[in-house]
Amino acid sequence: MAEKITLRETDYSQWYIDLVRSAKLADYSDVRGCMIIRPNGYAIWEKMQAALDAMFKATGHVNAYFPLFIPESFIKKEAEHIEGFAPECAVVTHGGGEQLAENLYVRPTSETIIWSSYKKWIQSYRDLPILINQWANVVRWEMRTRLFLRTTEFLWQEGHTAHATSTEAQEEVLRMINVYKTFAEEYMALPVIMGRKTESEKFAGAVETWCIEAMMQDKKALQAGTSHNLGQNFAKAFDCRFQSKEGALEYVWATSWGVSTRLIGALIMAHSDDRGLVLPPKLATRQVVIIPILKGDISAVIEKARSIAAELNQKGIAAFVDDSDQNSPGWKFAEYELQGIPVRLELGPRDIQSSTCIAARRDTGEKSKLQLDRSLADQINSLLESIQTNLFNRALSFREEHTLEVSSYSEFKANIDNGFLVAHWDGTDETEAKIKEETKATIRVMPADPEMVLRYGMDQPGTCIYSGKPSSRKVIFAKAY
Amino acid sequence: MAEKITLRETDYSQWYIDLVRSAKLADYSDVRGCMIIRPNGYAIWEKMQAALDAMFKATGHVNAYFPLFIPESFIKKEAEHIEGFAPECAVVTHGGGEQLAENLYVRPTSETIIWSSYKKWIQSYRDLPILINQWANVVRWEMRTRLFLRTTEFLWQEGHTAHATSTEAQEEVLRMINVYKTFAEEYMALPVIMGRKTESEKFAGAVETWCIEAMMQDKKALQAGTSHNLGQNFAKAFDCRFQSKEGALEYVWATSWGVSTRLIGALIMAHSDDRGLVLPPKLATRQVVIIPILKGDISAVIEKARSIAAELNQKGIAAFVDDSDQNSPGWKFAEYELQGIPVRLELGPRDIQSSTCIAARRDTGEKSKLQLDRSLADQINSLLESIQTNLFNRALSFREEHTLEVSSYSEFKANIDNGFLVAHWDGTDETEAKIKEETKATIRVMPADPEMVLRYGMDQPGTCIYSGKPSSRKVIFAKAY
Repeated sequence: MAEKITLRETDYSQWYIDLVRSAKLADYSDVRGCMIIRPNGYAIWEKMQAALDAMFKATGHVNAYFPLFIPESFIKKEAEHIEGFAPECAVVTHGGGEQLAENLYVRPTSETIIWSSYKKWIQSYRDLPILINQWANVVRWEMRTRLFLRTTEFLWQEGHTAHATSTEAQEEVLRMINVYKTFAEEYMALPVIMGRKTESEKFAGAVETWCIEAMMQDKKALQAGTSHNLGQNFAKAFDCRFQSKEGALEYVWATSWGVSTRLIGALIMAHSDDRGLVLPPKLATRQVVIIPILKGDISAVIEKARSIAAELNQKGIAAFVDDSDQNSPGWKFAEYELQGIPVRLELGPRDIQSSTCIAARRDTGEKSKLQLDRSLADQINSLLESIQTNLFNRALSFREEHTLEVSSYSEFKANIDNGFLVAHWDGTDETEAKIKEETKATIRVMPADPEMVLRYGMDQPGTCIYSGKPSSRKVIFAKAY
Repeated sequence: MAEKITLRETDYSQWYIDLVRSAKLADYSDVRGCMIIRPNGYAIWEKMQAALDAMFKATGHVNAYFPLFIPESFIKKEAEHIEGFAPECAVVTHGGGEQLAENLYVRPTSETIIWSSYKKWIQSYRDLPILINQWANVVRWEMRTRLFLRTTEFLWQEGHTAHATSTEAQEEVLRMINVYKTFAEEYMALPVIMGRKTESEKFAGAVETWCIEAMMQDKKALQAGTSHNLGQNFAKAFDCRFQSKEGALEYVWATSWGVSTRLIGALIMAHSDDRGLVLPPKLATRQVVIIPILKGDISAVIEKARSIAAELNQKGIAAFVDDSDQNSPGWKFAEYELQGIPVRLELGPRDIQSSTCIAARRDTGEKSKLQLDRSLADQINSLLESIQTNLFNRALSFREEHTLEVSSYSEFKANIDNGFLVAHWDGTDETEAKIKEETKATIRVMPADPEMVLRYGMDQPGTCIYSGKPSSRKVIFAKAY
């Protein structure tokens, strides 16, 4: 089994790294800043992909694939975009043994290479909308890396859509940020705050960036997904115009939106504990481990364990048996807790006699007795649902306990390490920059969730906690990953 | 609709390009040698991925992800490997605005980066086997490219396994080439010949390469998948040893195997015709298009078409309706034939009255009358199965008609443009190279399929058609993609 994991309260950062490596989720590679996503970690990504992909298709999107390489001249076409991304790029200068005539950038994001195609595909309003998503790897040169959260190469999906009107594009932006919110809350059991980014925090090349923000167990914020209204910026950069129904020649409206393997980091940091990974059942490839307690008639116990697993599998529950005799039951308990299997069934000869078994749930450690009868799958499904709900509720309570409204800068500074701060802001870049410089906290989101807006009177005017100038709304500040 | 497609008999290469572009499967990008896989093409890849991934998992494999970049020093560790791949590599020399201390190669294949990890993961026989697959993009600088078949960047899967014994590794090599054969034949409806490559055609760094070879409609061969026995070559290059059960320190045995988006090219070239794409139903995301013939009571026809589609969808058949009034039924017939939808249902007011409809199958163009009753899904399923079977049988007959045994070099030269030639070969690189130089034909495969071996007496000794020296077996020669 694994090395010991540092306790969260001792060193949260070290706990995270220890957990990721002990549970064999990921490893640093010999390539600077790049990670290896190991099978246990990749299995989580596959579950995320399957759920998201189905949600994208249900909202009318199709998948495609665009080149990894972007010619230097393309990436330079949108002024803000190149300013934001060029310093982070990996550059191919040689190919096939020769120096290239034009350098190729390894994609940090694909707006430019995709819009150079859309320009060719779009002539008339009949060609719109284009609703394409791409699953791909991207590269952004990072100086300080952290497994899943910030690595030079990562995996993601990027949606890139083209529309005839600004209104349609804005609807798409909001549709997709809401898809992300639903995914985060229903699959990841991760409560998120949805809203807009400030000017200084938006995507390089966007008119507006929408996001979902989550709170980790160390009370820091983590941006879990973004959806950008790109206006006509990329259409203008690539001269992409269409003939409207009315016959006019107009620039196309664009959106882009993405989530990445960073979500795996968010999942870990939101739910896991000092014993290891805690996985929401909906994202667990293996939901139930059955551990035979091998005393007396070993073969009968193993046989029963296998028949239970087969029955559960047949009913759609991903169960498996660990009947290896190399390790003790205690070792196995610890190992599968480390790996985050949501439910453990302990099965010994006496359990078989009494037609019961012990179920231990990973989230609370609580044990219960289950009946080994036809209703077993139902009993386990309730347990899995209860774990999924409990994880969400626990994370939501935690966030609510650590969200505080402040009305002065001294109050702000006294509490900024304690979670999300709701505060009035005068809407200027200067104030935002000053606060960041002095406290390291940034404006994470201008919330749009109706419940959040209502609860905190987010849209009420007031006075900026920093400048004392009039403020038209409250925003959420926090330190962030 | 699309531009006109060149006829196959006029210019097979141009037919292929025209088809790929008209059916919107792929496009050249502005990046030299790189393609854009458009939604229609990517949908085929998604179907292939789903089927293959399930087969890999059923044989005990798990997915993971390793870095895109490979340090120059790694790729140089295996002598044959670097010799084979270095000239084809794209090289990153700058990252984050600075020149790198060590150049990074964009992976052309991942043996080296993966074995540098396996070295860390493997200490004892208990850590074996490792059965990992990766879905990824790779880059090989190509001078002459062709959409899907040969592009600078392509998508693929690469399995990389580690074993305690040579026997186990060899079993894995054969298991996976047989998985590929099953996939090609059952899903792609593509008959393939399975066997070994010669020394000069094997993978750079392998001890043995196994492959499946298919015949295209122009009678050329196409390599559709490979499985390599890497022996201990990479373990030695990366000093990867394990403690055996007996306590000895031994080098690990390795395999790797892969198929790529090239399979989409094979699929097109094997089955499609002058009207466009022909897709085997098992790889069609859209299996049935329903085209309402809009005369008389339009709304009743549309309503019926939609209810039929809903019923078929519910029964697992991917059906959709095109009820747009922008295009005529004739235009739609041609468009969906171009796109390769396996079955077209034509539905007019009189059909509804008589509770029947016309079904046209894409492979033969044949029309039949179906009953619009409860058995409709069954009728369509039979049709889809019949199409799947017919495509396989048609391709198999074609291959058999164009496979000829030859016993002299003059006979060989007279027939080399006419398909696969079964011939005796003396087993030397020299003879192989001479024949290639003089005829452009290569040894595609030393068949191992029992039926093939038996039919042609592949394992019988004889006389080399070129050198007149003794030959221990017959092999298959052909011109190839």
